[in-house]
Amino acid sequence: MNELLIAGARRWGDAAPTDLAIRDGRIVALGAEARAQPAAATIDARGQLALPGFVDGHAHLDKTFWGEPWQPHRAGPTIADRIDNERRQMRELKLSPARQSARLLRHMVARGTTHARTHVDIGPDVGLAHLHGVMATRETHRGFIDLQIVAFPQTGVMRQPGTLDLLDAAVREGADAIGGIDPFAIDGDADGQLDGIFAIAARRGCELDIHLHERGEQGARSIGMICDRAQALGLAGKVALGHAFCLGELPPAVLEPLLARLAALDIAVMTHAPMGYLPFPPVRRLAEAGVRLFTGSDGVRDAWTPLNTGDLLERAYLIAYNSGFRDDAGLELALSMATFGGARVMRLRDYGLAAGCRADLVLVDAECAAEAVAAHPPRRLVLRHGRIVARDGAALLPQED
Amino acid sequence: MNELLIAGARRWGDAAPTDLAIRDGRIVALGAEARAQPAAATIDARGQLALPGFVDGHAHLDKTFWGEPWQPHRAGPTIADRIDNERRQMRELKLSPARQSARLLRHMVARGTTHARTHVDIGPDVGLAHLHGVMATRETHRGFIDLQIVAFPQTGVMRQPGTLDLLDAAVREGADAIGGIDPFAIDGDADGQLDGIFAIAARRGCELDIHLHERGEQGARSIGMICDRAQALGLAGKVALGHAFCLGELPPAVLEPLLARLAALDIAVMTHAPMGYLPFPPVRRLAEAGVRLFTGSDGVRDAWTPLNTGDLLERAYLIAYNSGFRDDAGLELALSMATFGGARVMRLRDYGLAAGCRADLVLVDAECAAEAVAAHPPRRLVLRHGRIVARDGAALLPQED
Repeated sequence: MNELLIAGARRWGDAAPTDLAIRDGRIVALGAEARAQPAAATIDARGQLALPGFVDGHAHLDKTFWGEPWQPHRAGPTIADRIDNERRQMRELKLSPARQSARLLRHMVARGTTHARTHVDIGPDVGLAHLHGVMATRETHRGFIDLQIVAFPQTGVMRQPGTLDLLDAAVREGADAIGGIDPFAIDGDADGQLDGIFAIAARRGCELDIHLHERGEQGARSIGMICDRAQALGLAGKVALGHAFCLGELPPAVLEPLLARLAALDIAVMTHAPMGYLPFPPVRRLAEAGVRLFTGSDGVRDAWTPLNTGDLLERAYLIAYNSGFRDDAGLELALSMATFGGARVMRLRDYGLAAGCRADLVLVDAECAAEAVAAHPPRRLVLRHGRIVARDGAALLPQED
Repeated sequence: MNELLIAGARRWGDAAPTDLAIRDGRIVALGAEARAQPAAATIDARGQLALPGFVDGHAHLDKTFWGEPWQPHRAGPTIADRIDNERRQMRELKLSPARQSARLLRHMVARGTTHARTHVDIGPDVGLAHLHGVMATRETHRGFIDLQIVAFPQTGVMRQPGTLDLLDAAVREGADAIGGIDPFAIDGDADGQLDGIFAIAARRGCELDIHLHERGEQGARSIGMICDRAQALGLAGKVALGHAFCLGELPPAVLEPLLARLAALDIAVMTHAPMGYLPFPPVRRLAEAGVRLFTGSDGVRDAWTPLNTGDLLERAYLIAYNSGFRDDAGLELALSMATFGGARVMRLRDYGLAAGCRADLVLVDAECAAEAVAAHPPRRLVLRHGRIVARDGAALLPQED
């Protein structure tokens, strides 16, 4: 006896609707085979499109204002202004990382996210408090979403003595990866920062996921230095870069050799298709060069920007829109970044819509994946391990507060 | 006896919720005065934000694929490629402009649009067929949306002999304005096109709304020539420019004098914040210079692009996102383009949320206008002339097909 039969859903890539049988949280059979056994419950998908659950590969759950009164943005225009302003707002608002992360997760689940990798601030000012808060949320929400945590030195590494020890402690206490940030622009000591974080990664066997806002040649230098260390320490496949704005503004003679190195070292690149005035990686070119790509919400309604929404299907739309993609292949590439791309970064097993995969999926009113990106329609149903966790845009999680 | 009381709605700009009384399609009283008379029906807005009905100032209703099977995009990258491909697809698909425009209007109403200005293709290949089709839709949908029609020479003016006569005929038959397109790049005869269309506008007393995709200095030359003619013919306040990509890439020494002329001649500029690889007008600078701004959907799911959605609140978000606005003033500027800016271009009387205004309004779950743009949440209720025309994202219009 199966637990659930989803009847008449069009899987991404399939020309016609099919049936999916679900048992023990997995897709156990498709088509006629799915109907061969009775099911305890049936959902008539009426031809809706089934997509695998979205993977938010770059979130900042600990710092969101989600659920709080509206906070007008008030930071200056530079990265340094935004870091200073954020610290000030965090001190003033005294928000609980546990509560805030739970609030935002609820919204993300409602929009179809079933897996997320979140950066969590670590530093002398906050210590490991954000890590502990988000780890608590990870426990209380284990039934609703899979969460990876990156210990993230938002305020810098070398300019904030003690940060390397905190990163190391964070991994011991349960962080899945450690981060880094702008080794030249924030720290002014690229060797120091990169040597420090790579040493921890090599010693602890954890992954690296490094924020890189540095522009132009400076960013290219940092990427080269990251490649050098990934190669020397045998960390191929264990490093990711977040933002990498510089890849959107380098001349081909500089860009192409970098892409070849990123592909050879299997270093993944995350872009959330930033606000229009910023460059961002040319994702079609990166994909052609064999560079793994993924995406994420980045900070949702926080001190950095009020504009991100935590909706990964809308994020795929923004990637397509700002990349100038109009063809189906481009729209599907954007969607793959919000699904399979993030799944590979998170090393998810059994991800997808094939028989045997975990039943993490989203139903939307669309004829095909390209239309789903173009229209990014409401999520009709979100299934996680075969259980309905959201319906018609509302999460079915217990209310936190 | 009032027809409707909307209780507890927060009007854009108000700190606290208030009540709105509606009679004969108008907002007749606010606050305690609104409650002084009984109402036939009451809607509890529960603190939702009330925005004036959205004004889509630049649509292409006649050419949408809306409601048809998904059409993968297949045009080449240039404007000329896209025009040629569009003509080919239009011939192949043989879609009815009346039916297609009705289908898309229904969707736009569901998303909160209560007024729209649509360009309608005019040319030797299609004659006035699109005009007649959209005029039919204007009649059948008079109860749901206010529609202005611009006769638009998509395939050019001077390169398509007979087009000027068709534009003239279109105004006689019911078009509200006439358009133009890239007088250098498409026609190669800027004087010919501009003299021709300005002569019709001056003779018929109609407005001009000109598409301008031309880039850089070429675009700046066209804008200068448009200003010359608006000034010479006394057409100040009667001309609008669509897209005007060039305004996003001119050096200040060229841009600023142009902005001063646009402001002095009260020429409005429309941008839909195009795909990220394209420049677009720096809207905050234009607003500061006193240039009137508005926005629109542009072509929704047509041969030009599958990516526009016909959702004006999402469009305000894209303007903010791609302009790099994070502050409330920037978000509200974007929203004003989707509301008051378009209302002024369409010369709507009694537009807004003050007592005496026509009751065209949208309710959304948001604390303030900035949040409405940032989150662009579902439309809970759309009122047009005091009548509910959409609820929870679904239009309450009779189904066409």
